[in-house]
Amino acid sequence: MRSHNVLLKIAYDGTNFCGWQRQPGARTVCGELEEILSGVCGTPVKLDGTSRTDAGVHAYGQQASFKAEFEIPVERLAKAVNDRLAKDRLERAGEIRIVWAKEVPEDFHARFSSKGKRYIYRINDAEEPDIFRRNYCYLINGKKLDVDAMNEACAFIRGVHDFKSFEAAGSTPRESTVREIYRLDVARDGDDVTMTVEGSGFLYNMVRIIAGTLVEVGLGARSPESLAATIEAKDRAKAGHTAPACGLYLDEVFY
Amino acid sequence: MRSHNVLLKIAYDGTNFCGWQRQPGARTVCGELEEILSGVCGTPVKLDGTSRTDAGVHAYGQQASFKAEFEIPVERLAKAVNDRLAKDRLERAGEIRIVWAKEVPEDFHARFSSKGKRYIYRINDAEEPDIFRRNYCYLINGKKLDVDAMNEACAFIRGVHDFKSFEAAGSTPRESTVREIYRLDVARDGDDVTMTVEGSGFLYNMVRIIAGTLVEVGLGARSPESLAATIEAKDRAKAGHTAPACGLYLDEVFY
Repeated sequence: MRSHNVLLKIAYDGTNFCGWQRQPGARTVCGELEEILSGVCGTPVKLDGTSRTDAGVHAYGQQASFKAEFEIPVERLAKAVNDRLAKDRLERAGEIRIVWAKEVPEDFHARFSSKGKRYIYRINDAEEPDIFRRNYCYLINGKKLDVDAMNEACAFIRGVHDFKSFEAAGSTPRESTVREIYRLDVARDGDDVTMTVEGSGFLYNMVRIIAGTLVEVGLGARSPESLAATIEAKDRAKAGHTAPACGLYLDEVFY
Repeated sequence: MRSHNVLLKIAYDGTNFCGWQRQPGARTVCGELEEILSGVCGTPVKLDGTSRTDAGVHAYGQQASFKAEFEIPVERLAKAVNDRLAKDRLERAGEIRIVWAKEVPEDFHARFSSKGKRYIYRINDAEEPDIFRRNYCYLINGKKLDVDAMNEACAFIRGVHDFKSFEAAGSTPRESTVREIYRLDVARDGDDVTMTVEGSGFLYNMVRIIAGTLVEVGLGARSPESLAATIEAKDRAKAGHTAPACGLYLDEVFY
């Protein structure tokens, strides 16, 4: 029996999960995957994910690692798990998909070894709500977002700042609320408005609070320049609303 | 109290419904709408839909009519129902949406007055399955469909034919299985392959059996020319498989 340290890249539709992190009595992505991986590997598997995404949040590229002794070749793990996740005899895709699995050095850890992450936040401002997208983006209907103003506001948020104003109220106090945002921009494609953010790390709900604040800028309720004072205040009450979970996608993890 | 005959255009995501038609103990689109309409109108409402879509089948444009006496102006019905269908305090769209509601003449009936319907069938043949579309199209992964061959096959199906080969086995015998298909074509946009069909009427599962048969043509398992014999046979066993419900959308009803 060989000993392995395996890194997985995972996509999931978070709509019907109570988030990533395992919880007794709740259906979670990590819990579901651990159960299937334990079956495939023939030994109990405990997964460490890079990001503890909330209920309703999606992923194109979550990453998670686990150590275990098993026989199945690592290059066959993804297919074995995906086959068990398939929905029915037509082999429709499941809600979770292993994009790839690879062997990593013994000291590698999906979360602690991570250097940064990219999130995507999807908004749609079509005149009428598209019911088929209700779980997959933030529907802002009846008003158009001013993407230029949103991008002006992004310039105030990029860089190294104390992001305390953008941390969920009541979060467990952290050593530091200083983070670096490398990239933050907003692009329109028809009625789809997509925010992309990359950073070294994120506080609890930080991406969704940035998205909610930028939406308020896009609707004209805040000026782009006001973001300087919002950051300076270090007060959650000064930032905008928390945009809904369903618009958020963990896109990529950097090592 | 005014007496009304109202026609509704309705969009719905059929994923989590046991189809359109009300059934005791099952969650159906018609059942859900009747409950809400009865509340809004203050009187029991019984809806007649144009098409009894199956579980998992979607609609951009189902139509349904009902007769009732109520006070609320017909032009305010759509918003009143949509507000009750909204998911939460963020007023996210629900799974069902009334596109419009309008008064129609007393002798109008959504089903019996209908002259024809358009359905869309969505297929995706990307290399890897897109989990976010698993409930919204037929995922054919790993092989590319030959859309030209599929369109050649369409020419054999268009027109007036006895479509018995394309009716679900075991269907209740009908007076006639002759139908007219005005339009049938297949178009590719990237990895999305969309079949559009318009006709005077459709037998049970007819659109899904046409889609499954065309997929077999697109994969090279049948020749386009073989469709002539398939129709001629008047035998369900000669046509292809029934494509999954999740790819089918009732797009428009013609009066």
